Amino acid sequence: MAAGLQVFGQPASTDVARVLTCLFEKNLEFELVRTDTFKKSHKLPEFIKLRDPTGQVTFKHGDKTIVDSRAICRYLCTNFPEDGNRKLYGMGALERASIEQWLQAEAQSFDAPSSQLVFQLAFAPHLKDVIPDERKIEENEKKIQTMLGVYDEILSKNKFLAGDEFTLADLSHLPNSHYIINSSERGRKLFTSKKHVAKWYEAISNRDSWKQVIKMQREHPGTFE
Amino acid sequence: MAAGLQVFGQPASTDVARVLTCLFEKNLEFELVRTDTFKKSHKLPEFIKLRDPTGQVTFKHGDKTIVDSRAICRYLCTNFPEDGNRKLYGMGALERASIEQWLQAEAQSFDAPSSQLVFQLAFAPHLKDVIPDERKIEENEKKIQTMLGVYDEILSKNKFLAGDEFTLADLSHLPNSHYIINSSERGRKLFTSKKHVAKWYEAISNRDSWKQVIKMQREHPGTFE
Repeated sequence: MAAGLQVFGQPASTDVARVLTCLFEKNLEFELVRTDTFKKSHKLPEFIKLRDPTGQVTFKHGDKTIVDSRAICRYLCTNFPEDGNRKLYGMGALERASIEQWLQAEAQSFDAPSSQLVFQLAFAPHLKDVIPDERKIEENEKKIQTMLGVYDEILSKNKFLAGDEFTLADLSHLPNSHYIINSSERGRKLFTSKKHVAKWYEAISNRDSWKQVIKMQREHPGTFE
Repeated sequence: MAAGLQVFGQPASTDVARVLTCLFEKNLEFELVRTDTFKKSHKLPEFIKLRDPTGQVTFKHGDKTIVDSRAICRYLCTNFPEDGNRKLYGMGALERASIEQWLQAEAQSFDAPSSQLVFQLAFAPHLKDVIPDERKIEENEKKIQTMLGVYDEILSKNKFLAGDEFTLADLSHLPNSHYIINSSERGRKLFTSKKHVAKWYEAISNRDSWKQVIKMQREHPGTFE
């Protein structure tokens, strides 16, 4: 029973975007609840003053509440195995183990440096009182370059990270990669300079589910006042 | 204490727009909570499929809940007399009585026929399975013309309905008038064919508070799928 799924948060947040993409892949019915604060003497709504792309997500399904975006994605796939994309979290134990390995690599090694780059490259240049930190950018660029080097080798053999199907392993990389790639030439090159990574990103960012999330981010943008 | 004001609903709804305009006039801090339902096999969010401009509003202030948009406006003015526009609901008993008279005329005589015209002129032409009802349009046009004839006389003497200040009496007319005027030449003429009404609408629709609401409606539109 898919009724009663609720997501609380703004689509411009990378964690919310991850969950929304999964919900669209699984073709599940859900409600998105957003709260914007309008401050006194300050008529701009909060949603156009997003300063933090790592804004939280909360997910509710009946009595169940989950706040980690990857845990929410796993929950959706295991609780609604027959809905929408059935291959998203693998069709057997072996496939799932491979997806899980990549999903954990993303959470443990890709997320932190890529979130730093999202902030430094995509957000900081638009904030009045923040100067992008060149040392931090270089340090995290190196980490991401090393990781994407490994990805490039894998993707020279497989179409997607965990094999020849698009899975949660790929999906989970979309929100941060999107902000980095669209931030600047420097951000874009991190991905386009590697042939197989470039082709992979092209494929995963063209999923209908992700294009729908991008559309929502544009309609309700997090710009930088 | 202005903390804890919450509005639940979509800005494209005329009742929500009325309340938001009042909150901006009163320069009060508040939260806007919107819920959009995403249906299975149907990736368009609910907010771009608004079929009904009379979508409800719910207002909460601590334990207090109010659902009538004009009652919410009165509540905001009487509970926060010192905030923002202090003249919005009059500064004395006599002024308030005059505003109240127009506010009631709007609710009892202007609202129903103008809501019909909002639906028939602004919404029905965009809905696949609805044919605008010419008989209903003419019938309600006549009612609005009669009312605006009275307004025109009053507005030849006063700058605003209840005197020389912009008040809730004027504010309350904005949401429906806006949709009618922007629907079609036919809708626009209802207002522009009367000299003093035209000048009045020009003045009230240029309030910063209302322009902010229009901006929100555009960012989160109710279009017609």
